[in-house]
Amino acid sequence: MKELSNLLGYRKSIKVVDATLRDGGLVNNFFFDDKFVQLLYQTNLRAGVDYMEIGYKGSKEMFDKKKFGKWKFCDDEDILAVIGENNTDMKLAVMADVGRCNYRQDIHDRKSSPLDVIRVATYANTMPAAIDMIEDAKKKGYEVTCNIMAISNVQEGDIKVALEMLGQSPVDVIYIVDSFGALYPEQIARIADLYMQFGAKYNKQIGIHAHNNQQLAFANTIEAVGDGVNWLDATYAGMGRGAGNCSMENLLGFLRNPKYNIFPVLQFIEKAMIPLQKSGIKWGYDLQYLMTGLLNQHPRTAIQFTNDGREDYVEFYKEIMAQD
Amino acid sequence: MKELSNLLGYRKSIKVVDATLRDGGLVNNFFFDDKFVQLLYQTNLRAGVDYMEIGYKGSKEMFDKKKFGKWKFCDDEDILAVIGENNTDMKLAVMADVGRCNYRQDIHDRKSSPLDVIRVATYANTMPAAIDMIEDAKKKGYEVTCNIMAISNVQEGDIKVALEMLGQSPVDVIYIVDSFGALYPEQIARIADLYMQFGAKYNKQIGIHAHNNQQLAFANTIEAVGDGVNWLDATYAGMGRGAGNCSMENLLGFLRNPKYNIFPVLQFIEKAMIPLQKSGIKWGYDLQYLMTGLLNQHPRTAIQFTNDGREDYVEFYKEIMAQD
Repeated sequence: MKELSNLLGYRKSIKVVDATLRDGGLVNNFFFDDKFVQLLYQTNLRAGVDYMEIGYKGSKEMFDKKKFGKWKFCDDEDILAVIGENNTDMKLAVMADVGRCNYRQDIHDRKSSPLDVIRVATYANTMPAAIDMIEDAKKKGYEVTCNIMAISNVQEGDIKVALEMLGQSPVDVIYIVDSFGALYPEQIARIADLYMQFGAKYNKQIGIHAHNNQQLAFANTIEAVGDGVNWLDATYAGMGRGAGNCSMENLLGFLRNPKYNIFPVLQFIEKAMIPLQKSGIKWGYDLQYLMTGLLNQHPRTAIQFTNDGREDYVEFYKEIMAQD
Repeated sequence: MKELSNLLGYRKSIKVVDATLRDGGLVNNFFFDDKFVQLLYQTNLRAGVDYMEIGYKGSKEMFDKKKFGKWKFCDDEDILAVIGENNTDMKLAVMADVGRCNYRQDIHDRKSSPLDVIRVATYANTMPAAIDMIEDAKKKGYEVTCNIMAISNVQEGDIKVALEMLGQSPVDVIYIVDSFGALYPEQIARIADLYMQFGAKYNKQIGIHAHNNQQLAFANTIEAVGDGVNWLDATYAGMGRGAGNCSMENLLGFLRNPKYNIFPVLQFIEKAMIPLQKSGIKWGYDLQYLMTGLLNQHPRTAIQFTNDGREDYVEFYKEIMAQD
């Protein structure tokens, strides 16, 4: 039987990261209006959220500013205008993708920025570029995390090499990322065990970012909690690419640290998330995402299926089964 | 770390039970049309489902036949007219509730009935009545299972007494039932361990019936699989009371026994379940069910909230928090 965590107690080392603007932004091209962002920020403060990820540092050479909302780029002046200086205990984070971010230029010294954390996202095979970004961000004074994406498609031997490289880097937190929503809790347990070994060896924290393709985003997150993983990504109403993420309301309902408070989360969902869904923005578990999850595929075909308003699920399944 | 089950192998002792008509019937008062039932039956055969639960043996003195569809009562002649003799390897089951079933009169000898299994549902405090029903059904030649409902509100000492009583009864399978969707996988692991001890002592199989209030119905079911639980309830598209059940499509996607086949499941969902949802029949995860799950309450208030078309989630939360 599993080594059980103490469900009635809590670990102070747990950190909750709200990724609504960042992963949710992938659903609406980051077109959140300022009032939504301000209310989300205030809600996170009231809910006891530890980190708020507000979007990407996307390359303006690569992405057309007219086609995306401001949280695709997270310019310091936009953050200051909408959120302000953020003189609170909650820290602000952005994601920076390998190959899609002019980090030397666009990420400024922490002293001159409202940001606190740079979250580097990489595939296992671009680890040297990720480490260059990690070192750059660390030199500029940031806390730095690294997401190794799509690990359900990576050989365990390669993951170990990546973890070894990250272990020797100045990164603070290494994330388990189930990009395709393909992993079961049992697999998360094994992967967490592996990551925790490297974390212990190199004094790194471990985090988890789950997707809900198989209705397991929350389950995989709390499995990881029980395994000792401390950094937990969640989004309001599970908003995120495709099937979405671990829901903040599920997670804060589970965590027992009295600093966390589910009530403002419920208020925000009623006031801001449900209207967003009613406006036609679509995310969340559905059959097409289960299918790509089961087949361990990127959900892009399922997202296209959703956006096209298709309902021929069986035909879609045949299409993605045939991808050789 | 948890003792891991072999994800690439399978246990032949696992049995999948389709509870769509029974638990799903609680959503639409059992008004399934005959073609739906016939197609579901054919689908279960193609999908490799082991048991099909077709409804309740409801007391006709207690329930008005005009207010419910035929699967509230499951008369032998109705089964024969719609499903037929069922000369297949899949077995047919009905549920019989303590206090809501004239079992001596309405459950006939197995030889003269198309039914194979009687599933007795009881609360812990009506165990003697349940055992009388179990003995009656066993004498009539049936396989018999017993659901101890709402165990998240029962003292562990009382559960042990109930398991001891069931152990000494002729019941074949004892079910873990998370009626309120209140339990986390870690708790399922502990409960499964307890039930498995009694199962080993008295040579009984253990089953699980989960609810999806916290998006954990599937996760709790596969947690139980990893713990050695063999009888697994699921419903198509998760159809069931309130937040619904473990989805058949999730479960068959997870199980590795080649006898199970997800493809007909996907076909049935597209052809029959999605039209049912579009017709206005509502079930599945939503905030109000999360709330009752978190508070370990019966979902009846949340079902009422849903049926009333209410959207004031925060007000609802305040209402159910105030129930002392």
